[in-house]
Amino acid sequence: MSRDAAIGVFDSGLGGLTVAKAIRERLPSERLVYLGDTARVPYGSRSGRTVVRYARTCGRYLAQDEIKMIVVACNTVSAVALDSLRVDLDIPVVGVITPGAQAGVRATKNGRLGVIATRGTIASGAYVRAVSAESSRVEVFARPAPLLVPLAEEGWLDDEIAHATVARYLEPFVDDEIDSLVLGCTHYPLLRNTIEAEGARLFSKLSVVDGAEATAIAVDELLVQYQLSRQGEGELSIRVTDLPGRFSEVAGRFLGEPVDRMEVEQVDLSPS
Amino acid sequence: MSRDAAIGVFDSGLGGLTVAKAIRERLPSERLVYLGDTARVPYGSRSGRTVVRYARTCGRYLAQDEIKMIVVACNTVSAVALDSLRVDLDIPVVGVITPGAQAGVRATKNGRLGVIATRGTIASGAYVRAVSAESSRVEVFARPAPLLVPLAEEGWLDDEIAHATVARYLEPFVDDEIDSLVLGCTHYPLLRNTIEAEGARLFSKLSVVDGAEATAIAVDELLVQYQLSRQGEGELSIRVTDLPGRFSEVAGRFLGEPVDRMEVEQVDLSPS
Repeated sequence: MSRDAAIGVFDSGLGGLTVAKAIRERLPSERLVYLGDTARVPYGSRSGRTVVRYARTCGRYLAQDEIKMIVVACNTVSAVALDSLRVDLDIPVVGVITPGAQAGVRATKNGRLGVIATRGTIASGAYVRAVSAESSRVEVFARPAPLLVPLAEEGWLDDEIAHATVARYLEPFVDDEIDSLVLGCTHYPLLRNTIEAEGARLFSKLSVVDGAEATAIAVDELLVQYQLSRQGEGELSIRVTDLPGRFSEVAGRFLGEPVDRMEVEQVDLSPS
Repeated sequence: MSRDAAIGVFDSGLGGLTVAKAIRERLPSERLVYLGDTARVPYGSRSGRTVVRYARTCGRYLAQDEIKMIVVACNTVSAVALDSLRVDLDIPVVGVITPGAQAGVRATKNGRLGVIATRGTIASGAYVRAVSAESSRVEVFARPAPLLVPLAEEGWLDDEIAHATVARYLEPFVDDEIDSLVLGCTHYPLLRNTIEAEGARLFSKLSVVDGAEATAIAVDELLVQYQLSRQGEGELSIRVTDLPGRFSEVAGRFLGEPVDRMEVEQVDLSPS
């Protein structure tokens, strides 16, 4: 395997661009190929069996080119399909849940950790399992916060409605006495300021843990371990299975830099 | 074609059950087969080409059984794929946009008609075209209201956040001086009370037009015209392409009656 090979990053849609952004910030020399399965987004409301099937299609697509690692920039896929992907592909596969859970365990002082994510991710129990694997002394309180996804896509990040919605989702955690909260969905970092503001209002102290940053650190460590870190100038290629309206606007918001629609390749994943 | 044949109703997901509900209320003797393409929902954020491809798969699936009519209970599909469906199938195809637009034209007194729908439906220009085809004296003001879909699915129908979100979407119409508003998305009837309350607060008078009711009337008229109205006891069969968590809760909210998950059939649409 060559150091020059790209890292394949995939998500059900564009939310995973927050993970691509975090990797680019930490590892600016790496070449990233991002695949967003925008024709079938969102995975979060689908059954586990369907998510595994979709994820394997994405993994096989990316593995057609020489890649040295797969980053599953999607909590829903990370919750149910990592094992299947590892069976299919003979390269390291990194999900977003274990890094987020590990960072959450490090962040909590009182051993009471909150997690917000989509319904599918919460229902999978993946964060509870990942935290248990790290520490037997941390209790996890996990609840869905589905409205935060369309708020992020609409760009309503810091207004009255965003604050009221975030507060509604955080309030049940007050009785749980959590002191740290993992953002278990790739869309949520866009609302981080609002989540921190409502957290400061509702809790005496609340540390907000961004799974995207934690995942970028895990990727870095794994590249070093496998001696696969790249030098030179990095790049990012974006491929999607559908190019909807407002693509550039929404993608740019997640990536944190302008996205030229003309440079985005639309690809067809053969049905699995 | 037999009067006893079923009416095929399809939508990208479960929102079209509001249309099935309206048809059942108006035509309790009809047999309905509802297909929700929940494995690929939502269509609203996809390109027109993809929507046409998905819609033809749904239409062909329903036409495997003896059906006397297809109701496209989805604004996104009605906006772009009715012609393709009519070419594929040799039975009447009814969409939700023309009935909604006609009801809107009848409702407006001052000739200034508002429409709210998903981004995809608005961008298609379908409501503007459908109203123009009815009347040259009605001006259409059409804007997307995407957050209303997850609010309906979350069941946040009449609270502070629902009212603030509806108000945010209605406010730009005040300067347009509309007197009637078409709900151009199958999810929106669940928020009708809140939309009417905010409409009463923001406008001197605002008639809210429910496209689902208008579609049921159009189906009724077409059955009479083709002499295909059925007698006896009606029935409803629900089929979906994926059975996600909370299925019964969300489906029941749209249908307005309990849905037993065990009686719902999961089907596989062969890839088109």
